[in-house]
Order: sequence, then structure tokens, then C-alpha cells
Amino acid sequence: MKAKVTAHDVARLANVSQSAVSRSFTAGASVAPETRERIHAAARSLGYRPNAIARSLITRRSHIIGLVMSYLENQFYPLVIERLSQALQREGYHVLLFISETGDADAVLADILQYQVDGIVMASTTLSSALAQDCAEAGIPVVLFNRVAQMGAMGRFSTSSVTSRNREGGALVGELLVRTGHRRIAWLAGLENASTSLDREAGLTEALQAAGLALHARAVGRYDFGQARRATLELFSDPATRPDAVFAANDHMAIAVLETLRRELGLNVPQDVSVVGFDNVPQAAWPSFDLTTVQQDVDRMVDATRTLLFERLGGEVQPRSVAVPCVLVERGTVADRA
Amino acid sequence: MKAKVTAHDVARLANVSQSAVSRSFTAGASVAPETRERIHAAARSLGYRPNAIARSLITRRSHIIGLVMSYLENQFYPLVIERLSQALQREGYHVLLFISETGDADAVLADILQYQVDGIVMASTTLSSALAQDCAEAGIPVVLFNRVAQMGAMGRFSTSSVTSRNREGGALVGELLVRTGHRRIAWLAGLENASTSLDREAGLTEALQAAGLALHARAVGRYDFGQARRATLELFSDPATRPDAVFAANDHMAIAVLETLRRELGLNVPQDVSVVGFDNVPQAAWPSFDLTTVQQDVDRMVDATRTLLFERLGGEVQPRSVAVPCVLVERGTVADRA
Repeated sequence: MKAKVTAHDVARLANVSQSAVSRSFTAGASVAPETRERIHAAARSLGYRPNAIARSLITRRSHIIGLVMSYLENQFYPLVIERLSQALQREGYHVLLFISETGDADAVLADILQYQVDGIVMASTTLSSALAQDCAEAGIPVVLFNRVAQMGAMGRFSTSSVTSRNREGGALVGELLVRTGHRRIAWLAGLENASTSLDREAGLTEALQAAGLALHARAVGRYDFGQARRATLELFSDPATRPDAVFAANDHMAIAVLETLRRELGLNVPQDVSVVGFDNVPQAAWPSFDLTTVQQDVDRMVDATRTLLFERLGGEVQPRSVAVPCVLVERGTVADRA
Repeated sequence: MKAKVTAHDVARLANVSQSAVSRSFTAGASVAPETRERIHAAARSLGYRPNAIARSLITRRSHIIGLVMSYLENQFYPLVIERLSQALQREGYHVLLFISETGDADAVLADILQYQVDGIVMASTTLSSALAQDCAEAGIPVVLFNRVAQMGAMGRFSTSSVTSRNREGGALVGELLVRTGHRRIAWLAGLENASTSLDREAGLTEALQAAGLALHARAVGRYDFGQARRATLELFSDPATRPDAVFAANDHMAIAVLETLRRELGLNVPQDVSVVGFDNVPQAAWPSFDLTTVQQDVDRMVDATRTLLFERLGGEVQPRSVAVPCVLVERGTVADRA
């Protein structure tokens, strides 16, 4: 293995200080353009590779963002990983993955904190207030993605959050189902402790109340395909009380509902039952599903996440929450019964 | 922000050397169990967090594996990310993501090498021999996932690889289609420079030749849903020459073929045309698709990847290739016309 070229070698060749070499490889650090070019030319000719890890001890930036997720079978989160990685890569940062197996992020967080990440994005997992405090004390910004921040003991938020306007999204669907004449609307919840599911349900029930209606039935799918199938069989077990519409907390479950209604129960969608999802994952647009759903603006959510991370990397800015509007995407799974 | 607790503080409290503290937090390093327990108790009481980044400069292990991917809409790769992350996490390693936007990993690799990763897994991208050499010279093991290693200038492999036995998988499908009486078989290729696609096609055509047949038609889908749809419309544009079976290089394209045949061309699958995919992604099992396909053993591939990475982290072991068997998964998209 050839002897490793160091920053010292480059500094000598370019006739600058070693710290100038380090600054020239650090995005945003101050160095004159022509000096930076001269240093990089010297570096290329020597085959020098800046050591991001060592530099992190000097600049205290590792250029690594920890991303905590718990399950990827749902088609929404792979899209988030891809877009977030690309948005951060454009700023010279990379995502270090922490897959939380149980859905409880606390065990994972102790792990992350060993890596000196510059920030943490938590998607699809919960975070206890105590650990949010730990991160805040260590000066590490935490942004919750698709979950709302919980107020800590001091009556303050210690994490930022980016969500869709889930409540509004739920209301959009409620209003659609009401104006198309549905009267026996069932709600298929995701995870009971997930703000996404609770907020979407709140929006739905508010829209129903405004029309003098109440929810006809409720089941829990836990964002799981198999669980959603079982919940559907349960909801439709008695023909006398079967719903005329099912609003599922996400597309992954809505597709399970569609499949179960058509293949196992011999019912027609939308003629017998309407079905609505949430997310607008790519599969929702496939002709076999043609699913009416609510679009989360992933690009805006990822952009807001990046903004929140970087504004807090400075240190003094208070955590804040951003809620991105969603839009109804009407396809073919809702019939007009009005 | 409270003063940071250092390894020195822990060493003093536990009455050991600073290097003993470091070893006690390094998996596999030698330290007596009771000493390790005493050190960890001291660390807990002081609120000490080992600095994995600093430790990497001493141990030369960052405990980070770079994973290079190029697209995630295909349902196979999110599964790979999840399983690989979990397998590596059990060994105390984490995946640092590099999403390659163009499918050419060279630009990304220069980036990765700044992070002092302990190893690199390249999935769904190509790697030039020159950069594979760079990694080898830097002592960084590279494992290609789902791509075969290319022989370098010296007539040797510089990277390890893990693949499915793609050729055998292609042959399994060819044999199935021949014995069910198909005679006008079309092949829908993925990316033309991808060994997965080329090997599956080779297996298919060998099986056909053994039965005295040749490929009836060939199109290119580039592993893209829209492209696969257009290729299908092209293949079926003339009723006189339409295929009786389409074997697509992966499930993502096979589903596009199914959708296009049924929704746009009004054809029945499998009665009019049989369709076969490759991967056995979760969607293949959904009743609407019920897709006959070939199962890649992701768990075995991930396990082999982990084994290959860790055996080369020692340094002297030659790169090697592992090919994992696949199995045919017969569902409902192939009719028996024999």
C-alpha cells in the first residue's frame, strides 16, 4: 500500500498553511477562490484524499445525518429515504441509517450518539422526551419526520418536526365522502400512538360532524398489510352493518382493503364500497388500484427537513414545526351515491 | 452545555488506562469481563459516551459501511437496505447511504472515500475497474451486490460479489414455459449493461435452445415501469406476431406488463398471454397480480455480503464471489397450453 498523502504534503506543494488546506475542503469555510483552486490542483496531482472523519474533530462537523426508520415495506418511506439522501447529498451530507426494529427509537439513539452525527431525522418512530433532551443538550438538532413533536417537561419543544397537514387531509376525504352520498363510513386506523393516524382521523370525524354524521365503524390496521386484511374481513362480516366506504390511514392498508374486498369478499369497488387511502405512493396510480388518495408533498417535506436541520446546526435557533399542505387525488375508487 | 466527559475521566474513576477504556467499548478487543464491567459502570455513572469517530482514528475502524444504490422505486432494493442494515447493526456497524443519481458510481465513490468507511457495498450500480483498484489500494473491501465483479487489468478480481444464480433462474423460467407449451416467448430485458439481466436472458435462451426453440421477440424495459409499458405496447402491436408469454427481467417490469396487457390491450392473463417476473417482491403476492416469478434469497445474499465484508476487513483475504440459488415461485400468471 503506497504511503498516504497528507494535508501537510499538499500544503507544502501549494505553498499554504495546513489549515488553509483543511478549509479549502470544507464547504462554506473561507478561502479565496484562486487559492482554493491552487490547493485542489496540488491535491489532485498528489492523489490526496481529505479525511472527513479527522476533519470533523477539528471543525466538529462530521457531515453525517442519522436517519432513524422502522419499516420499509410501506412504499412511502423508501421514497423519503431517496429524496432526503439526494437533498442532503447536494449539501455535502450523507445519511447514516438506523433501522429501529421495534418501533421504539430509544435503544437506537444511544447507538447514534456514538457516531457524532451533525443532526438526526426520525421517521416513523417515537422518541421519548428524555432522549430528545439528551440530544438537545449534546447540541444535536433532531427533526421528526411525519410525527409531531411532543412537549417536554419544561413546556417546550426540544425537537423540530415536519408533517403533512394530516388533519386537513383527513377532512378533505371526509368532505368528499359526504358530498358523494356516503353515510356508513369506516375508518381504518394505523398505529394508535401515531400522530399521523390520529390527526387524519380527527379531520375525518370533524368533517362528518359538520354534516351531522358520525363514524359508522372503526378498526385498527397498524399500517400492516395482513392486519388491514383481517380488519376488513371483520368490518364486512355482517352484511346488515357493512360500511359503504372505508378510509384507510395510508395507501399500503388501502390496497390491502381493495384486494380483500375484491378477491375474498367478491365485492365491487367502487360500486359496492368506496375506498380511500393516504400518501399517493406510486402503486396508487397503477391501473389495478386506481386509488383515490391524499398526496403528501414529499419534496416539500424533505426540503423543510433540510432547512430545519441546517438552521439549527448554527445552534441557537429554537426548534419549530412545519406542516405542509396535502391535496386530494381523485381516481377511481369512490362512487357518487348522492 | 455541560462539560464533556472524556475517556480520561472514566479511566481515572475505574482505575485503568485510557486505552483499556477504549478497548472496552470496541467489539472484539481484548479486555477481561470484570474489568469491562467496572469500566462500563464508571462510564454510566459519569454519563460518558464513547466517541466512535475518534476511536476510529486509533483503531482504524469507523464501523461505517458505505452502501451505494441508484434507485429505490423498485421494491427489491428497499428490502435489501432494510435487511442489510439490520444484519450489520447486529455486528455494531451502520450503513451510510450514497444514492447515485446517474447509475454511474464513480462520482459517488470519490465522495465515499472521504468518510473512511470500513467497507463498501455497491448495489444496482456499475463500478469502473480503476476505482475498484483505488479502493483495493486503500485497503477498503468492496462487495458488489447483485452485480458480478469485472476482472481488472491484472487479470484478477479486485472486488467481491454476491449474486443470485441468475442464469439458473432464467433457465428455470425457460423450462417452465417450454413444458407448459409456450412457443412464442418474448424477453423483456432490464438494463443492457446489467449482469443480472444478461445472465437471466442467457439462462432463458439456453433452456429454449435445449428444446429446439429460439426467442420469439425481445424488448428493453430498463427496469422502468413506463418503459416496460411502452415495450409491451410495441411487442403486442401486431396480432399476427404477438407473443404467448412474456418473461420480464424483474417483477417491477412484469407488473407493468400485466397492467398494460389487461387495462390497455384488453387481454387476459394467463389465458391469452403468460407473464413471469423475477425477484418475488411483496407485491408479486398481492392477489391482483398473483405473479409467477423467481425468488431471490435476499436473506442469504445479505448474509453472504456481511460474511464477505468481514472476512476482508482482516485484509489479506482475496476477493471472492458467492452465487446464491434461486427458486421458482409458481402463482397464477402462467397457463398450461401443452
